[in-house]
Amino acid sequence: MDILIEKIKEKKNPSVIGLDPKLEYVPNYIKKKNFTEHGNSLKAAAESILDFNKGLIDELYDIIPAVKPQSAYYEMYGFEGVRVLYETIKYAKEKGLYVITDVKRNDIGSTAEAYSAAYLGKTQINGEDQEIFNSDSITVNPYLGTDGVEPFVKDCKRYNKSIFILLKTSNKSSGELQDLISANEYIYEKIAALINQWGSSTIGVSGYSNIGAVVGATYPEVSKKLRKIMPQTYFLVPGYGAQGASAKDIKNCFNPDGLGAIINSSRKVMCAYINNKVDEEDFAKAARGEAINMRDEIVG
Amino acid sequence: MDILIEKIKEKKNPSVIGLDPKLEYVPNYIKKKNFTEHGNSLKAAAESILDFNKGLIDELYDIIPAVKPQSAYYEMYGFEGVRVLYETIKYAKEKGLYVITDVKRNDIGSTAEAYSAAYLGKTQINGEDQEIFNSDSITVNPYLGTDGVEPFVKDCKRYNKSIFILLKTSNKSSGELQDLISANEYIYEKIAALINQWGSSTIGVSGYSNIGAVVGATYPEVSKKLRKIMPQTYFLVPGYGAQGASAKDIKNCFNPDGLGAIINSSRKVMCAYINNKVDEEDFAKAARGEAINMRDEIVG
Repeated sequence: MDILIEKIKEKKNPSVIGLDPKLEYVPNYIKKKNFTEHGNSLKAAAESILDFNKGLIDELYDIIPAVKPQSAYYEMYGFEGVRVLYETIKYAKEKGLYVITDVKRNDIGSTAEAYSAAYLGKTQINGEDQEIFNSDSITVNPYLGTDGVEPFVKDCKRYNKSIFILLKTSNKSSGELQDLISANEYIYEKIAALINQWGSSTIGVSGYSNIGAVVGATYPEVSKKLRKIMPQTYFLVPGYGAQGASAKDIKNCFNPDGLGAIINSSRKVMCAYINNKVDEEDFAKAARGEAINMRDEIVG
Repeated sequence: MDILIEKIKEKKNPSVIGLDPKLEYVPNYIKKKNFTEHGNSLKAAAESILDFNKGLIDELYDIIPAVKPQSAYYEMYGFEGVRVLYETIKYAKEKGLYVITDVKRNDIGSTAEAYSAAYLGKTQINGEDQEIFNSDSITVNPYLGTDGVEPFVKDCKRYNKSIFILLKTSNKSSGELQDLISANEYIYEKIAALINQWGSSTIGVSGYSNIGAVVGATYPEVSKKLRKIMPQTYFLVPGYGAQGASAKDIKNCFNPDGLGAIINSSRKVMCAYINNKVDEEDFAKAARGEAINMRDEIVG
């Protein structure tokens, strides 16, 4: 987590921009170019997304510390989409950005090891280790318990990577499971204790562990409580912007040192040119304006 | 779920073979061919896996109703691996097999819709609907509650597909979250009630809903209880074979009509030629022998 924190300090900006590029968000001139070249194909869709992502990254990389590609929006275009997820991660890293790939993977034993090899570690091909997606960080679902988390923790140590474990999610129905009470504690408090435990052997020089938590901005009282019981855990915070949480709501996610949280916004930044009725060729500049607004709102 | 049940009845075999093709499981002669042709590349690894899968499917499709490719073992070879996952699903369906793609996906709102489009439904490209991975069924993680499940349920109805929701998993640490007690009920009982509810609008002519549950064979007392409280839910049962559960342990997963469960085995069948020290060129025949043993053990 030290690497992410360095980038947050350098840019004075604790925000991460989601790259969730639905085809309808991509400016028409980009789509026209690719669909003319590749026909009405998944490849044309995928290449359009890649052009859009690169345009956004080029205009944003000097003011933001991190991006968060959402895997679903690439997988929906098949292996061509997944290829472009790989290209997006690679491009963002070349521009110095920290890449949190939002995959919410979960499985056990050697299967969890395979996921970890894919996204954080390396895959051995005939005795030779190869990087695959090689992102800096991924999101992980805790439903399977320690067996489903340990293989990722191992690779976090080995390759100096991080993970963010779903804890209290931002959505309306998150309480159906996460807010149940067991022996006088909320389920999310039980998971918080597990995250503290999983992270305890990965504390960096920053004082934060490599095992972070996803804590939605939409439940500010919960994030306040969680902030107290897990002071060394970094929070990845969705729900700001399109999902309705305000800058005030997210204050609770930070520690007194101003660190401890990175706030995600996706559509509000990606689609700024649509929302603000700006010429589509200026999509990246519009996104930059919105990203600066967001930074100032959070830090201010 | 009717489609799966028809295939189970036709083959008189309630088992599903996992296609979790680690490169080390693939016979050397297959790897040699592909690594000679494509060099020491991800493509060579992926093509080796595809050849292995096709060999297994060719030898098994007349005696088994379904296969379950585990996505992690394809993703670990990057987009070439994901391409081969697509090819595997396509090939298995051409041979009449029901394909349960084990992806354990989970997300909310439009992101869950994107996953569902990828694996069950269709993706719209310039007004034209395209099938992507087009599997018959996938596994889904319930940690996010209804928001994370509804988009998949919708596509189950629209495209006559099914999902299996993680309920009580087979692994050692599954109890850390799933066995907590809230208001006198285990968490897995709460999720079971949700699964009943999510499935209630998708009951087929078989009397089973399209919303199934993953229930590990390694906790027979739990599966007995769950069988009673969710009589219309099909169980996908891991843990048989390599994970130590016996034919006796899995009896509890079936309803009195002999339906209600499909038992998974992966390594024991895939790696039969290694375990039984058979010539590697006979890997598929060895798998067939083991699949028949398994069927007879379950049904007998």
